[in-house]
Amino acid sequence: MEYLKNLLEEYKNGNVSLDKTMNELKNLPYKDMDFAKIDHHRHLRQGFPEVVFCAGKTNEQIVEILKELKRKNSIVLATKANKENADFILQKLPQCRYHEKAKTISYGTFPKIKTHSYACLITAGTADIPVAEESRIFLKAAGIQTKKLYDCGVAGVHRLFSNVDDVLNASAIIVIAGMEGALASIIGGIAPCPVIAVPTSIGYGANLGGIAALLGMLNSCAPTVSVVNIDNGFGAAYSASMIVKQSDR
Amino acid sequence: MEYLKNLLEEYKNGNVSLDKTMNELKNLPYKDMDFAKIDHHRHLRQGFPEVVFCAGKTNEQIVEILKELKRKNSIVLATKANKENADFILQKLPQCRYHEKAKTISYGTFPKIKTHSYACLITAGTADIPVAEESRIFLKAAGIQTKKLYDCGVAGVHRLFSNVDDVLNASAIIVIAGMEGALASIIGGIAPCPVIAVPTSIGYGANLGGIAALLGMLNSCAPTVSVVNIDNGFGAAYSASMIVKQSDR
Amino acid sequence: MEYLKNLLEEYKNGNVSLDKTMNELKNLPYKDMDFAKIDHHRHLRQGFPEVVFCAGKTNEQIVEILKELKRKNSIVLATKANKENADFILQKLPQCRYHEKAKTISYGTFPKIKTHSYACLITAGTADIPVAEESRIFLKAAGIQTKKLYDCGVAGVHRLFSNVDDVLNASAIIVIAGMEGALASIIGGIAPCPVIAVPTSIGYGANLGGIAALLGMLNSCAPTVSVVNIDNGFGAAYSASMIVKQSDR
Amino acid sequence: MEYLKNLLEEYKNGNVSLDKTMNELKNLPYKDMDFAKIDHHRHLRQGFPEVVFCAGKTNEQIVEILKELKRKNSIVLATKANKENADFILQKLPQCRYHEKAKTISYGTFPKIKTHSYACLITAGTADIPVAEESRIFLKAAGIQTKKLYDCGVAGVHRLFSNVDDVLNASAIIVIAGMEGALASIIGGIAPCPVIAVPTSIGYGANLGGIAALLGMLNSCAPTVSVVNIDNGFGAAYSASMIVKQSDR
Amino acid sequence: MEYLKNLLEEYKNGNVSLDKTMNELKNLPYKDMDFAKIDHHRHLRQGFPEVVFCAGKTNEQIVEILKELKRKNSIVLATKANKENADFILQKLPQCRYHEKAKTISYGTFPKIKTHSYACLITAGTADIPVAEESRIFLKAAGIQTKKLYDCGVAGVHRLFSNVDDVLNASAIIVIAGMEGALASIIGGIAPCPVIAVPTSIGYGANLGGIAALLGMLNSCAPTVSVVNIDNGFGAAYSASMIVKQSDR
Amino acid sequence: MEYLKNLLEEYKNGNVSLDKTMNELKNLPYKDMDFAKIDHHRHLRQGFPEVVFCAGKTNEQIVEILKELKRKNSIVLATKANKENADFILQKLPQCRYHEKAKTISYGTFPKIKTHSYACLITAGTADIPVAEESRIFLKAAGIQTKKLYDCGVAGVHRLFSNVDDVLNASAIIVIAGMEGALASIIGGIAPCPVIAVPTSIGYGANLGGIAALLGMLNSCAPTVSVVNIDNGFGAAYSASMIVKQSDR
Amino acid sequence: MEYLKNLLEEYKNGNVSLDKTMNELKNLPYKDMDFAKIDHHRHLRQGFPEVVFCAGKTNEQIVEILKELKRKNSIVLATKANKENADFILQKLPQCRYHEKAKTISYGTFPKIKTHSYACLITAGTADIPVAEESRIFLKAAGIQTKKLYDCGVAGVHRLFSNVDDVLNASAIIVIAGMEGALASIIGGIAPCPVIAVPTSIGYGANLGGIAALLGMLNSCAPTVSVVNIDNGFGAAYSASMIVKQSDR
Amino acid sequence: MEYLKNLLEEYKNGNVSLDKTMNELKNLPYKDMDFAKIDHHRHLRQGFPEVVFCAGKTNEQIVEILKELKRKNSIVLATKANKENADFILQKLPQCRYHEKAKTISYGTFPKIKTHSYACLITAGTADIPVAEESRIFLKAAGIQTKKLYDCGVAGVHRLFSNVDDVLNASAIIVIAGMEGALASIIGGIAPCPVIAVPTSIGYGANLGGIAALLGMLNSCAPTVSVVNIDNGFGAAYSASMIVKQSDR
Repeated sequence: MEYLKNLLEEYKNGNVSLDKTMNELKNLPYKDMDFAKIDHHRHLRQGFPEVVFCAGKTNEQIVEILKELKRKNSIVLATKANKENADFILQKLPQCRYHEKAKTISYGTFPKIKTHSYACLITAGTADIPVAEESRIFLKAAGIQTKKLYDCGVAGVHRLFSNVDDVLNASAIIVIAGMEGALASIIGGIAPCPVIAVPTSIGYGANLGGIAALLGMLNSCAPTVSVVNIDNGFGAAYSASMIVKQSDR
Repeated sequence: MEYLKNLLEEYKNGNVSLDKTMNELKNLPYKDMDFAKIDHHRHLRQGFPEVVFCAGKTNEQIVEILKELKRKNSIVLATKANKENADFILQKLPQCRYHEKAKTISYGTFPKIKTHSYACLITAGTADIPVAEESRIFLKAAGIQTKKLYDCGVAGVHRLFSNVDDVLNASAIIVIAGMEGALASIIGGIAPCPVIAVPTSIGYGANLGGIAALLGMLNSCAPTVSVVNIDNGFGAAYSASMIVKQSDR
Repeated sequence: MEYLKNLLEEYKNGNVSLDKTMNELKNLPYKDMDFAKIDHHRHLRQGFPEVVFCAGKTNEQIVEILKELKRKNSIVLATKANKENADFILQKLPQCRYHEKAKTISYGTFPKIKTHSYACLITAGTADIPVAEESRIFLKAAGIQTKKLYDCGVAGVHRLFSNVDDVLNASAIIVIAGMEGALASIIGGIAPCPVIAVPTSIGYGANLGGIAALLGMLNSCAPTVSVVNIDNGFGAAYSASMIVKQSDR
Repeated sequence: MEYLKNLLEEYKNGNVSLDKTMNELKNLPYKDMDFAKIDHHRHLRQGFPEVVFCAGKTNEQIVEILKELKRKNSIVLATKANKENADFILQKLPQCRYHEKAKTISYGTFPKIKTHSYACLITAGTADIPVAEESRIFLKAAGIQTKKLYDCGVAGVHRLFSNVDDVLNASAIIVIAGMEGALASIIGGIAPCPVIAVPTSIGYGANLGGIAALLGMLNSCAPTVSVVNIDNGFGAAYSASMIVKQSDR
Repeated sequence: MEYLKNLLEEYKNGNVSLDKTMNELKNLPYKDMDFAKIDHHRHLRQGFPEVVFCAGKTNEQIVEILKELKRKNSIVLATKANKENADFILQKLPQCRYHEKAKTISYGTFPKIKTHSYACLITAGTADIPVAEESRIFLKAAGIQTKKLYDCGVAGVHRLFSNVDDVLNASAIIVIAGMEGALASIIGGIAPCPVIAVPTSIGYGANLGGIAALLGMLNSCAPTVSVVNIDNGFGAAYSASMIVKQSDR
Repeated sequence: MEYLKNLLEEYKNGNVSLDKTMNELKNLPYKDMDFAKIDHHRHLRQGFPEVVFCAGKTNEQIVEILKELKRKNSIVLATKANKENADFILQKLPQCRYHEKAKTISYGTFPKIKTHSYACLITAGTADIPVAEESRIFLKAAGIQTKKLYDCGVAGVHRLFSNVDDVLNASAIIVIAGMEGALASIIGGIAPCPVIAVPTSIGYGANLGGIAALLGMLNSCAPTVSVVNIDNGFGAAYSASMIVKQSDR
Repeated sequence: MEYLKNLLEEYKNGNVSLDKTMNELKNLPYKDMDFAKIDHHRHLRQGFPEVVFCAGKTNEQIVEILKELKRKNSIVLATKANKENADFILQKLPQCRYHEKAKTISYGTFPKIKTHSYACLITAGTADIPVAEESRIFLKAAGIQTKKLYDCGVAGVHRLFSNVDDVLNASAIIVIAGMEGALASIIGGIAPCPVIAVPTSIGYGANLGGIAALLGMLNSCAPTVSVVNIDNGFGAAYSASMIVKQSDR
Repeated sequence: MEYLKNLLEEYKNGNVSLDKTMNELKNLPYKDMDFAKIDHHRHLRQGFPEVVFCAGKTNEQIVEILKELKRKNSIVLATKANKENADFILQKLPQCRYHEKAKTISYGTFPKIKTHSYACLITAGTADIPVAEESRIFLKAAGIQTKKLYDCGVAGVHRLFSNVDDVLNASAIIVIAGMEGALASIIGGIAPCPVIAVPTSIGYGANLGGIAALLGMLNSCAPTVSVVNIDNGFGAAYSASMIVKQSDR
């Protein structure tokens, strides 16, 4: 509101004309919203990277947006980037790096890890790892500490049990699972922190492209589970990063 | 085939005319199938009760069918019978008994338990018990031994663990669960016998009347799980009774 | 682990027989899990009430479970309780109180509010308020501070704008909306904390009992939104209570 | 009806035989319908182009239909034309032009803009632009004035606010959005003219190929929103062109 | 913007303090939006009634909202009001009138019809009339002229043909149809104005509560058809009223 | 066309003015269509009754329509009439008769059976009989001969086999089945005439109100099966009556 | 039954041993069924070709089955054959012919047309023709006369009207339409013979791969419409061929 | 439990320190679970192979997992392996063998058949064979005897009848069918042992990728049918192998 006060004083002092003041104020609702956004962004810029969703955009558009965002951010990400996107973009912007498993491109320097609290990433199977990596890269770019427990479904449940402390001490947990998604209920039954469940499209037939896991997670008998879209590792990580950051202050 | 041999010999000896022989043989495909059925039925009658599905039938029809079946069977069941069905039927057939939780009417004497092997009935919650009871009454009427572990979901999982031997030594397990149905995957992950999962319509919203549990169970990462229709305790018990009987011989 | 150490020493000293030690240890996996649960529960008891889900249970069962839980907890809740449930239960347990709008029964004393941080409850319309109240009663029973902004959809959006500070300073936000659920995206676009969206079954026709709002929220272009089941005010509040509590420490 | 009057007079004057008159009249129901159509078409030809839907047609069929329609129209369009369609068609009909972003082929001369009123095209994201361009090319070919506000979703909402006058003064608005489609509700909440919403197939997972946006728009709490099929930029533009033309007279 | 100019001049002249000016300006974004709304509302008040959606609200809430809205409007409507709603409300607000077929309550005086242009209401069957009446009452309350062609489906198609001029001269057409909803395509094929289609829940089985008609209308081969939610007569009328009003000026 | 010829001659002779002739001809498209309809109706009246679909209509409307139709038809039917409809209608029109199982009201005298060929009605279970009776009453009212084989599903398949000649000699077969609807495939595999399958809503859970049977029948491996809507006994009978009548001539 | 009689007489005469007779009779149920099938097939062979469904089979399997069937049939068809199937099969069986539009391979000589009655094939659009051609080739191979009215949807409805006699005199009509499938209702409203509707997968978005047309046709307000699977031209033709053949005798 | 007893005795004798004992016991819950698993595995290893699900895994991951599992198992399988998987894996692990029809890779030596009882594999059509082969290879690797009756649907039903003894004497039956899946009901109607039904994705249109068959099987009127996921030959075989093994002991 400093800006507004200065404007009014400058106007009263005659340094700014009525017309110019009027014009400034006319745009204030939106400018002000911009300020809010900037303020909000300032907070975000302390840790939350800007992210471009590649699907449905042309390679040229992605490059333009990345360049634009990079001007104002130390690190920018582009998610759901396939090999063909990556080849094009890395040729145009050689400073970019392609995290193939995560299908994510990073542009800029990853910050130092800033939190003592951490988010725990747990996948049911090997095939769920790409979605978990999308989460992990975002959290890394946001300066959030992570621990990962991959492949902890029925076949690898011992990994879960032998690292149960990582589950019990997390500030936020992201469970990534396809098929029936039961792992979310199991983790939700023991974890003392919020569980964000990411259904994946791993499975076939009556899996319906991840709908089975999605419905399972939404109906979880564990009341601590909330859910994001199928394969949406980025969204889960965004919520988790906010929770961890708040826990850490 | 004795019947056929006799017929042919009688015919050759002139005791039966060509016309009559022809006629008998013309109907043989169906008669023979009837024989097969009778044979098959004889086996069934050793333990498997006849069952009437009440939904969509008038009370009068149910009474007629029960009376008809009772003539040839020592015990007959009627499932999905609501209070109003039961009131009508017990008035007409006072020897019937209404198992209210199971929404099942029994007509006749329950046999002695005939098996050493047993089927284990496991429910996730209190609200799943009616479906489990439908299974249990059928198994009892079929002379199959059962053990029951009710209310073993997330909140009562200790009941599961403290009776884990009942799970490990069963010949068949029926898991009855609503909401996300994850219990089927958990049991399927530890049980060394076939698991028949019954999704229930317990839940709300995105549960879609049991579809969420159904899809979850069909997509179970445990390969030992097969599934029957939502709330179909009877069907699960029928398959289980066959498995237990075979294990027992 | 003190328990274990003592046991072993008592055994070595001959105060406990091998058989008894064996037996204790045999049950240790589950006992130990119980301990963990108790530990975990102790933490929970500091603020998180026990909750009974009424749907599908008989009134008698609900009363029994409430009585059992009340022994170990200062406050117990029962959700999705209709008028008929409430009449029965309050007759049997007159100390209970029925929060009609929230369709929730409380049994015991609400704790003092223990947090400086707060959860913000925002509904789109008047008809979404019952679900919000389910959230609010849980949070109150958990000792979590709340602010509520009800009826902030298109028709009442000024209420949102004139209380925008309550949105910007919350530690967790629960958005409750039916129809198309767009409010979750709008809030998600401005809030600097995690948004837990609760689709409601308010609407008709292609609303499909809340599925339209559910899908809308899962596909939100705002990356901070995670979602719980349709009408699941309790689940959203549970996650939110954990986030607020962590923010507060 | 001039035709009919002349026919009858010619017949009375003996210039046309009874037989021929009968025959003409026998076909009149259909002929007359043709006349109606022609009349209707005459009106349409003042601005509404003929449009060929390419999907499911062979390239040869498209070329034939385009040539046939071009005989009677100054401009003809072909929508949902992919690159391969375009290559074939432009080789056969070099006067055609391929609007790649719009996946639309135009054949003939675009008319002058004939309206003072205008339709406003608003997209949520970059990836929704192809559908918007399909609308825009149709409106251009129909001589309807347009204004476009692309990329006005959550990330670019400032573009919406800084051009709010274009929204407030439009005669018809087409909102094109994928994911959860919330932009339609936001625009519907402020626009004083009909809003035609086009859900797009942009999104993934529980987006279900645009069904999430479609349901969201159908359930919009803003009562001014009507909806066309997923990705149907052409249909939205057709309705919008009629509204603008009527507003303009 | 006069208000803003005056404020600044008063401030410069010292009639208003910096603090008060600051405060006024701080709220300007929302105030201004309110102004916009008021402006917009002024336009609306010339013809568009306020409407309360009854479903999900208590009778008490509906009465409160009706009273509140009536203060600022000459006519207010309440839709989806069942008999039980109506009985309660008319007792509390005896000036209200219940339009039973339309399931709509009106509160206040219907304005004179203000338009020469008109909206044409066409239903396929007798059972679709309630939804059409919801549209008609709204249009009447908005001062829009209407013509109605009820029961024009396959069985009554002669009514359509013998009133074809009403179709051809309308400024907007609302087609209300259940079952397969084909009437929308038939009307869309001949009408020279926008067609707003309302699928109804009339039908059974694979009709899926109106989904069949909804999908049929969304996929209409007539490009002039846009669609609103199942049974949403009000929404269709709202869009139609805007189109007619614009055509009339 | 006599009418047309006379009109023209009268006009030429000066007995009818040009204006009146023009007017008559102007309406000819619709009049002529009416003639066609009447012609078509005459054919129908030889056997096909008029039918009123009760659902969604008020009792008063049904009575009015029945009275209207009765004037021109010797027998009229009203389908999907529940007990409450029937009570009202039979009080107003005591000559009506309520076929309770068929949920059909007949008004007028059933004709003599006019065909040697016949339609065969086959149901899977007892609960499917009401739908079959809806078919049977229509066929009876249309003067079509029928044979019925009820309750021929898995439990009563012997009834099918012992009446296989009725299947093999039919001109059209209507198979009515709920649950999985497999009976349609079995009949389709042996019948040498068209099979019209009616899925019923008998079943529960994943039956989805008859959708399972509907999908099963649509995907039948027997190529002679076509399908009508769930529980649509009337529609199946209408098609069957046409086939039988054609076979008989 | 001649075979059976001979067998019995040969046995009585001592020409065949009891053992051999027993053996023959033991297999009689199935043999007899084979006889039935052969009998049935004999009837079919008078006009109905054998048909191989290519999808899901290897090219080698298709060739083997075609060769096997050709031995007993003068003409054999293979449907849903893509270009790649055709190339392989025509190389191995050069006497085959690929009907590309119909995606059907014929193997053998088409019979003369044997019926005076005919089936009428009506498509809504150009893109529906391949499915219609699948029907036409089958009917041709079955010796059934056909008339075709292609492209009679909204844009080409004049073709329908100017050939209305072909519609009115058909013995069976196949309507093939995608998008909303309304053409089936229109034809069903005027045709005096059974209408078999084939929904096609032509369309996009909310068309759901033909489900919209399928649901529309199942819910048709015209009671003469029955429906087959999406794109199932063969099935529709099979039913139609039976109807035409019966009409012709 | 021997291990535990020894540990305690060694500790009492001073051979093992308190610390080491504590440590061992601390991990006992999980270790013990491992023991249980090993125990369980030992049982399994007598016949049940380890299985890798290839879909969603990289070729490198599959090779690593196969090598790891092979160390502890005499035979390992990898299912849902396409040609490209197989080429890569067989190059790295030349001892592997690709069962192309079954899309399964085997690694190691198939055991001798160990059971007298057998599982019977029945497919409806040729196109269902790949799924049946997935079952068969698993059962072979598990040492379970199998009989196969392929292509027994409507067209090949004689194969079923002439091998009916194989059906009647099986200990478990796997029915594999696409389209409407009616074969499961037919087999379920005659088989005296549990039937595990595998819906396949064979079909098109309203088949919905196997959902039609899945729903059909879940709603089977035969109570002995339980169901696994679409195309899940492996899961069906796993359950069947357990049933056969139990029957055999």
